[in-house]
Parts: sequence; structure tokens; C-alpha cells
Amino acid sequence: MERVDMTSVISEISVSLDGYIAGPNDNDEFPLGEGGERLHEWLIELSSWRERHGLEGGTQSPDVEMFDETWKNIGATVMGKRMFDLGEKPWGDEPSFHMPVFVVTHEDREALTKAGGTTFNFITSGVAAAVEQAKSAAADKNVAVAGGANVIQQCLSARLLDQLTIHIVPVLFGDGRRLFDPESVPRMELEMSKVISSPGVAHLQFQIAK
Amino acid sequence: MERVDMTSVISEISVSLDGYIAGPNDNDEFPLGEGGERLHEWLIELSSWRERHGLEGGTQSPDVEMFDETWKNIGATVMGKRMFDLGEKPWGDEPSFHMPVFVVTHEDREALTKAGGTTFNFITSGVAAAVEQAKSAAADKNVAVAGGANVIQQCLSARLLDQLTIHIVPVLFGDGRRLFDPESVPRMELEMSKVISSPGVAHLQFQIAK
Repeated sequence: MERVDMTSVISEISVSLDGYIAGPNDNDEFPLGEGGERLHEWLIELSSWRERHGLEGGTQSPDVEMFDETWKNIGATVMGKRMFDLGEKPWGDEPSFHMPVFVVTHEDREALTKAGGTTFNFITSGVAAAVEQAKSAAADKNVAVAGGANVIQQCLSARLLDQLTIHIVPVLFGDGRRLFDPESVPRMELEMSKVISSPGVAHLQFQIAK
Repeated sequence: MERVDMTSVISEISVSLDGYIAGPNDNDEFPLGEGGERLHEWLIELSSWRERHGLEGGTQSPDVEMFDETWKNIGATVMGKRMFDLGEKPWGDEPSFHMPVFVVTHEDREALTKAGGTTFNFITSGVAAAVEQAKSAAADKNVAVAGGANVIQQCLSARLLDQLTIHIVPVLFGDGRRLFDPESVPRMELEMSKVISSPGVAHLQFQIAK
């Protein structure tokens, strides 16, 4: 009997109007690049995000509802090796994931268990395998593809993503790290399923047919 | 006494979600590139656009209202030389502009008068001069910057634009001609003034502070 697949693989990312996810001259010590933190101002102000990261206050808005709806039912996360390397130290001993995380890497490495339910699993057999394992771990919950851009591009190209949400911030960077590098994805139609605007950011949600 | 400037300089353009305004391998004989016509499907279906181009039928939608509101009060148009060269023949003896058009070019050339009120004026002193002359010609109406991408980039960089509307079409091209080439515009904050969604396209309108 065929298993009915109820797990959605979803991703969301903030971009400038000209398509950048980090400002110019980003590097491992400076991952957002010059002025790149501008893209995340809207998020850091949200009470739901603050609560998840142990901070008080913040504002509620239509953003919050969408953010919560999309993200409250995540059971596992997939990310690239660079994102893990950049995050490992700042995330500390109790990362805010509180779920299994599958890191796409070339380095064979034992799983790393942190306090609060976060385990980093290192997957050397490619992004499709990492998504598959994340789906199993998520059980009836959804899988989040956290980034970076390269992993999101790979998931789009292989049609591993079911849903992509783009948060468009009204700023032009002029230069930086792009969400979509040339030829990083094949030509592909998406279905625009939701458009939500709130002060300072527009949220566009897309469904990807298998 | 200082003149109060009531003329707005506005532009609008359709882009793929990954930021392309034409598909791959575009050239002068094939200006939309491979599959680039996809970006304009939503527009060609609109009854207001069809009416303006002498066609019957079409659909009405929230698109129409926004489109009409923005474009019904245009008194002059600015465009680049490539756009003029590509359009001159298909636009025919009675182009649908019905207003003065100012073409930014290096070629000194006499004005070209067409039937129905369209005159092409060739401006060799740069994009700012072209916008200035268009503003004078438009009197109390607005000026449209029709494109291409290069002229829009120049107008943004020089803060000649007051309003930019981006129509985001839910397709990934993967490659093609970009709206925003790297380093084509300086870092710049915009004000997101309107977000309208309709089936198959999201309209994001931005105001640019002087």
C-alpha cells in the first residue's frame, strides 16, 4: 500500500527587492555582508520570533500570523554546511531549533546532540537524502529548509520543496549575495498561493508542483 | 517663487521571481528571449490594456484598477534607444503612446512625428535631460519611464523616479536579462506603498524619496 505523504517541505527567506540575501563583501566572519541585517529587521521585531528566541516584547501584525502558521508545525530542519558552520557558535549550547537538524556536507561526522532537543546530523549523500531523512524524522510534521541560498536552489531544482515563501524588503542593495544565482535553477512555474503585505515587508508564498 | 513640482515620474515592469525581465538568449530580433512572453500574459489579458491597443475583450480584475490608476494620467514617456529601435517597426504608423516620447540616445536626430499624437524626440544630453524635457511636455500630467532596464536603473540611481511598480510573475527563468544588474544601482531605501495580488501576478509599488 502506497504511503500518503503528508509532510510538506517548506522554506522561507528574506531578500532585497533586487534579489540579494546578504549585502556586499560577506564572508565567514561577516555572513550578512555590509548592511545585510536590514533584511531581518521586520522579523526581529515580531513577538513570535522573539518568544522563540527567548526574548520579550515585539509587535504583532499580519506577519506574525503567517509566520506562525507556516512555522509552528515543523518537525525537522535541513541546512547547508556553511550555514551550520556560521551558526554553530552563535547558536550556543541550546540552539533554538529544538528538533533534529540535517546538515548537507561532504564531511563524515558523528551526530552532535545539544541541549533542548536539537541534534545535528551530518548527511554526506546529498540534499535529496537529507530531505528524505528529515521527512522521516519529522513524522507527521513538516520539514523546513533553513538555507543557505545554495541548498534552497538545490531543493528547488530537484523539486524537493513544496512551498517557498519570499519576504521582499523594500531596499536595493546594488550588490551582494543573490538568492538566485544565474543558472542555479531550471525554468519552473510556481503557483502563487498567498500575498501578504505589512509595513516594511511583502510576503509572497509559492507552491511548487511535483 | 519656487515652482511646486506636481509631475510624478513613474515606471513599471514585469519580472520573474528570480529577477529577469527577458528570457535567455534575447537579441534584437528576439527581444523577450526564450519564453519571455510569459511575463506579459497577465497584462495582455487585461481589458484596459487591450482597449488601449485597439483590441476587444479581456478580463477585469484588481490589476485593472491599479493599472488604470497609475497610467491614466501620463503626459509624456521616456525610453532608451534599444527599446525605441526594437519597437519602431511593430508600433507602426500610429503608435499607442499618443503623447510625446523622449528617447535617450547618442545619435543626434530630428524629431519623428507619427499619427495619433506620438512624437519621438531624440535626446543626446542624458537621461536626466530627457526626464526634464518629458516633465515640461507632460505639463500637469505624469511622466512614464517605459524602459528598458538600463534606463530604469539610471533613473533610480539618479533619483529621477518617484514611483516604481514591479509586477512579480510566479515563474523562475534561471537565466536571462536582469532588471537589476550587479552594481547598476546604489544602495537605496524605498517605501513600499502598495501591494496588490491577483491570480498569477503580485504588484508591488514603491515610492522613492528625493
